[in-house]
Amino acid sequence: MPASTVIYPPKQKYSFLDDYSEGAHPQLLEALVASNGTQETGYGNDRYSQEARQHIRNHLGRDDVGIFFVPSGTSANAISIAACLRPHEAVIAASSGHIVTRETGAVEATGHKIINVLPENGKLTPLSISQALEANWHYPHMAKPRLVYISNATEFGTIYSRAELAAIKALCVENGLLLFMDGARIGAALTSPKSDMTLRDVLDLVDIFWIGGTKNGALLGEAIVVKDPRLAEDFEFYIKQRGSLLAKGRIIGIEFSELFRENLYFELARRGNTAAQKLSRSIEAAGYSLLVDTETNQMFAILPLKLIERLQQDFIFYVWEKYDVDHAVIRVLTTWSTDFDRVDEFARIVMNWKAE
Amino acid sequence: MPASTVIYPPKQKYSFLDDYSEGAHPQLLEALVASNGTQETGYGNDRYSQEARQHIRNHLGRDDVGIFFVPSGTSANAISIAACLRPHEAVIAASSGHIVTRETGAVEATGHKIINVLPENGKLTPLSISQALEANWHYPHMAKPRLVYISNATEFGTIYSRAELAAIKALCVENGLLLFMDGARIGAALTSPKSDMTLRDVLDLVDIFWIGGTKNGALLGEAIVVKDPRLAEDFEFYIKQRGSLLAKGRIIGIEFSELFRENLYFELARRGNTAAQKLSRSIEAAGYSLLVDTETNQMFAILPLKLIERLQQDFIFYVWEKYDVDHAVIRVLTTWSTDFDRVDEFARIVMNWKAE
Amino acid sequence: MPASTVIYPPKQKYSFLDDYSEGAHPQLLEALVASNGTQETGYGNDRYSQEARQHIRNHLGRDDVGIFFVPSGTSANAISIAACLRPHEAVIAASSGHIVTRETGAVEATGHKIINVLPENGKLTPLSISQALEANWHYPHMAKPRLVYISNATEFGTIYSRAELAAIKALCVENGLLLFMDGARIGAALTSPKSDMTLRDVLDLVDIFWIGGTKNGALLGEAIVVKDPRLAEDFEFYIKQRGSLLAKGRIIGIEFSELFRENLYFELARRGNTAAQKLSRSIEAAGYSLLVDTETNQMFAILPLKLIERLQQDFIFYVWEKYDVDHAVIRVLTTWSTDFDRVDEFARIVMNWKAE
Amino acid sequence: MPASTVIYPPKQKYSFLDDYSEGAHPQLLEALVASNGTQETGYGNDRYSQEARQHIRNHLGRDDVGIFFVPSGTSANAISIAACLRPHEAVIAASSGHIVTRETGAVEATGHKIINVLPENGKLTPLSISQALEANWHYPHMAKPRLVYISNATEFGTIYSRAELAAIKALCVENGLLLFMDGARIGAALTSPKSDMTLRDVLDLVDIFWIGGTKNGALLGEAIVVKDPRLAEDFEFYIKQRGSLLAKGRIIGIEFSELFRENLYFELARRGNTAAQKLSRSIEAAGYSLLVDTETNQMFAILPLKLIERLQQDFIFYVWEKYDVDHAVIRVLTTWSTDFDRVDEFARIVMNWKAE
Repeated sequence: MPASTVIYPPKQKYSFLDDYSEGAHPQLLEALVASNGTQETGYGNDRYSQEARQHIRNHLGRDDVGIFFVPSGTSANAISIAACLRPHEAVIAASSGHIVTRETGAVEATGHKIINVLPENGKLTPLSISQALEANWHYPHMAKPRLVYISNATEFGTIYSRAELAAIKALCVENGLLLFMDGARIGAALTSPKSDMTLRDVLDLVDIFWIGGTKNGALLGEAIVVKDPRLAEDFEFYIKQRGSLLAKGRIIGIEFSELFRENLYFELARRGNTAAQKLSRSIEAAGYSLLVDTETNQMFAILPLKLIERLQQDFIFYVWEKYDVDHAVIRVLTTWSTDFDRVDEFARIVMNWKAE
Repeated sequence: MPASTVIYPPKQKYSFLDDYSEGAHPQLLEALVASNGTQETGYGNDRYSQEARQHIRNHLGRDDVGIFFVPSGTSANAISIAACLRPHEAVIAASSGHIVTRETGAVEATGHKIINVLPENGKLTPLSISQALEANWHYPHMAKPRLVYISNATEFGTIYSRAELAAIKALCVENGLLLFMDGARIGAALTSPKSDMTLRDVLDLVDIFWIGGTKNGALLGEAIVVKDPRLAEDFEFYIKQRGSLLAKGRIIGIEFSELFRENLYFELARRGNTAAQKLSRSIEAAGYSLLVDTETNQMFAILPLKLIERLQQDFIFYVWEKYDVDHAVIRVLTTWSTDFDRVDEFARIVMNWKAE
Repeated sequence: MPASTVIYPPKQKYSFLDDYSEGAHPQLLEALVASNGTQETGYGNDRYSQEARQHIRNHLGRDDVGIFFVPSGTSANAISIAACLRPHEAVIAASSGHIVTRETGAVEATGHKIINVLPENGKLTPLSISQALEANWHYPHMAKPRLVYISNATEFGTIYSRAELAAIKALCVENGLLLFMDGARIGAALTSPKSDMTLRDVLDLVDIFWIGGTKNGALLGEAIVVKDPRLAEDFEFYIKQRGSLLAKGRIIGIEFSELFRENLYFELARRGNTAAQKLSRSIEAAGYSLLVDTETNQMFAILPLKLIERLQQDFIFYVWEKYDVDHAVIRVLTTWSTDFDRVDEFARIVMNWKAE
Repeated sequence: MPASTVIYPPKQKYSFLDDYSEGAHPQLLEALVASNGTQETGYGNDRYSQEARQHIRNHLGRDDVGIFFVPSGTSANAISIAACLRPHEAVIAASSGHIVTRETGAVEATGHKIINVLPENGKLTPLSISQALEANWHYPHMAKPRLVYISNATEFGTIYSRAELAAIKALCVENGLLLFMDGARIGAALTSPKSDMTLRDVLDLVDIFWIGGTKNGALLGEAIVVKDPRLAEDFEFYIKQRGSLLAKGRIIGIEFSELFRENLYFELARRGNTAAQKLSRSIEAAGYSLLVDTETNQMFAILPLKLIERLQQDFIFYVWEKYDVDHAVIRVLTTWSTDFDRVDEFARIVMNWKAE
């Protein structure tokens, strides 16, 4: 049965496969250990979760938003989207979006159609959203577009600029659409060298979004930020009904409290971005091209197949797609925990191989 | 908004409110810290989860069962039940069952009706199940009964004997019903002084069940045991689709590995039972009655209202229901982490108050 | 396979089994034939459906309500209820309610829990609803009660008085609950000798209800009346999505146009009631009792088993439940098409058998 | 509210808009009237439905299939598909498929993802299905492809040849996929001059399909043919749960009994095809092109905008899409009830306009 096929990395190889290969940042673990013995109210009403909410609200600069913790990105997406929609309403998303490609039809399992849109570098635009609206107007024979899903950073590591997001928001307002941001990698997005947005900007420009913990230093957990007070009032019902309200909600509370008490969350994300930048500059210096510019902690490099084979002797990464007869695109993911020595080693192999 | 109402216990009071007030057993936390830096394959394919599965299989004495980890009891119940049923099939459950009373309609949210049956001390019987079948035969106007849900220990702390479970199983086989056990407190059940079953007996007598970690020493996590190989083959789809497949599945793997490497799981459960036994004997020695015999870690005691008020000065517990004009039923929950000094203190207050 | 078991009544027996054994009232068929050749816009935008809506609005005395046609009672109930609720919201209904006992879990299949309440003569009361609310307050662990389902006439043929309905409505307003009426037999209810309500009263006192055609002279079709303009705006989406928007919506439109142009709908219903009244008086004259007073077109009579056997030689009806060792309750249903000679014949057998 | 916008055709114009503008074929209406007074068992267990099932089985040449009647095409599709799938399983369909474009997300509302595939003339091919499989293999992160949806005739009026269907079936068998045919226009498909299949061939080559009544002479109703005996055993549960089991199932039974007693069903379909053929030949004779060959009762013609305007003075039809700056594609639909004089008139306008 599939569950028993062990495929963890052999010890000698270093993994750039994803951003959840390691455990938690040590500071989070320490807080977990330190708080372990206290008795707390269950289901997210503990003091740590309350503190974490307050810290996040401080970062957002607004106190009147609901903040809810769930264990995974798929639960964050499916719960948020289903909570916003009536049964006949549909989601507009890029065909590369995580809810389309990697969540086992979780949104459809809540009853909602996803209208696929071709992305540009992983992103939606006012034009592509408009086209989706035009193709889905036929009352009552087509599901009614109601919510736009974007991920930031995207599945290609690209980010939305403030202007891009504002333009999408304007179109949404005009057409009665809600705007939802999947923030699994929002830390990487906001600390990108290219970024011109803060967490507060995101809050101002979307209707509902979430801040990913799992991919940025937490053991598990994502924080959903809900602006609409009526939605927030009942939001825990949705979380509980979908099996995502942990009895020991304290675990996620403790983690987010550490991440947002000061700026640890953003420091961790920046470190992942820095590693990817470094790697990307090496790749380009060695004369190779990137599929898309490296804006966050994901690098998509076009490399000769032989070089890829050489790299695979020491590293694990995703061979994304064929490029041409001699080349393929690889995806390399760096994180808060990436070992910079290994980054250097990876770069060295690329450089030296070139020299052969 | 409800999420912001802090209701954690004031420091001076000790909580017997539930079995998830504290963090994890220290041995689990240590393992979590020790393993934190390694790189692992995500989504439950890490070495710790594989080890944990093997340890559990050793306890079960069978290697050919699927074992799957999910973060919460509600997800374990809803995922398991929905995975077993076709859309028109219904569940038979006691009206006191957790899926009926405390899971926000999670089973119905997957599309399935629950047929409620009046319990005896929290338990179903062949008779009560038969009556439910007789009342729901009307093809095709009634949802078709297909799965029997039982919890062991029950929501009243009572347990099924081997004979009771075998009788239910026989009825299920005869009527084409699947038997599913919610094992949130299966540790408490199997270590009850009254228990005559092992984990292997449970495996033999039910079709699918889960082993609760959250309420017995883990930070989070339950292990679903699936006997049907075809169901097991696709089971991770269900988990992923419902947002319950953690990217860092290692967390639950590490915990269950510790709990089941030797007998820690059962030792912890037995400790909770012992505390409840001790408390129950004191209550009875003081001349008060129990609503149901204390078979596991839950005590339901009938106490004078004035005594309850006195106890509330030092303790937190659930006032379950009115009993008569002067008395109410309280629920006291003990766990692996219960402080026996506090148990003694509770007993002393009861004794002394009686003396007044 | 079940679909092939023919169990239609042998010719010589007359059926009082249900109120849908015959086809349509001849006037409806004539209109269907007369209009057959015209070309009409599909999906309920034909001229007949528009006329029908206007006729119903005239009867309601209000022009600002949405009126929507669906083919069956189960679709009327499931669509209306699902359209009103968010995913975590639950329905309160009598355990004898049609959605509980005869719709194959259709409401649960839309994801919503039904909270069962013990009825009084098939009816809910402010007290029983309040008790359901008290038992389901536990945020966020219990599905949130949001809609009260009543049927009028009920499954026992009883009806709500204006005062009873007003009291329930007041409780609903106070508690933020919507009130929904299943009007499969609303014609029978409003033409009951006991009735003190009009269609307009119903409109004023509930949030959403439907007018049953299938059980009162139509081939098929029910008319859902939606007061909330925002709900009405999107209501056809729900109907279409659930497969209940007929391409030739004209069929239902033509039928309802005939039924509501003048008073045919109510005349048909009154005729069914009269037959049941007549039969009930005979039963009582013969010295037998009714289980509940006959208020509409359903009679529940307590008869000796031997007499029931005798009646079964000539008639088909529902043996509802055992009463005592010698008696059972039978349900006899009369309709607009009931043959009064057969009613007399039934009564005569009861009278004569008594004389034996 | 949208429901009240009357848009039926003004009397003087003739509609080629769709194949459900008129009522039923007169023979069906006569049967309906003739049978109206008899008492029948409800919910499809009447004698007419039984006869209809037998007539269809005679046409299929097999007695061991389940046949089930539902009121609409959307209900036929959503019920059949949901009955075949477990929650994590997905459908592969052409992006032009009816379930994708005109059913308000009805399949997604049952919880299942539709994987869209680019069609060739409205059709799927083994290649396009294989590509969908290759793009959706990622266990357990992608919904599992399990059922292939095709419509025959397609939404472009094209049909599958026996060889094409056999090739798709072979691929399905190899990959564990079920093959489902939407037969809303199966009559038109099987009576196409190009057709090399019978109803029996379809039965042999697919797992489940339906025979459309609504678009071929019935007031309403489609007949679902289920080969798998286990699926057939419970199939009425699905129909009832989705509100599609009519109390007076006799109505659909009577209609299908007339359609399939002899060959009326196919005669009606052939007549619609003939009209479209005739029209297509005229268009081509006048020097215009068709977007796709006219294989059944749908014609897609590329005409000058000015000519389209002229035609719109006398006719109603669908302006399908822009073609170039001077031309658009129109869709003309003919049926069993099409007035051939109007076909000639349409052709004459095209001819004469050309002469200008």
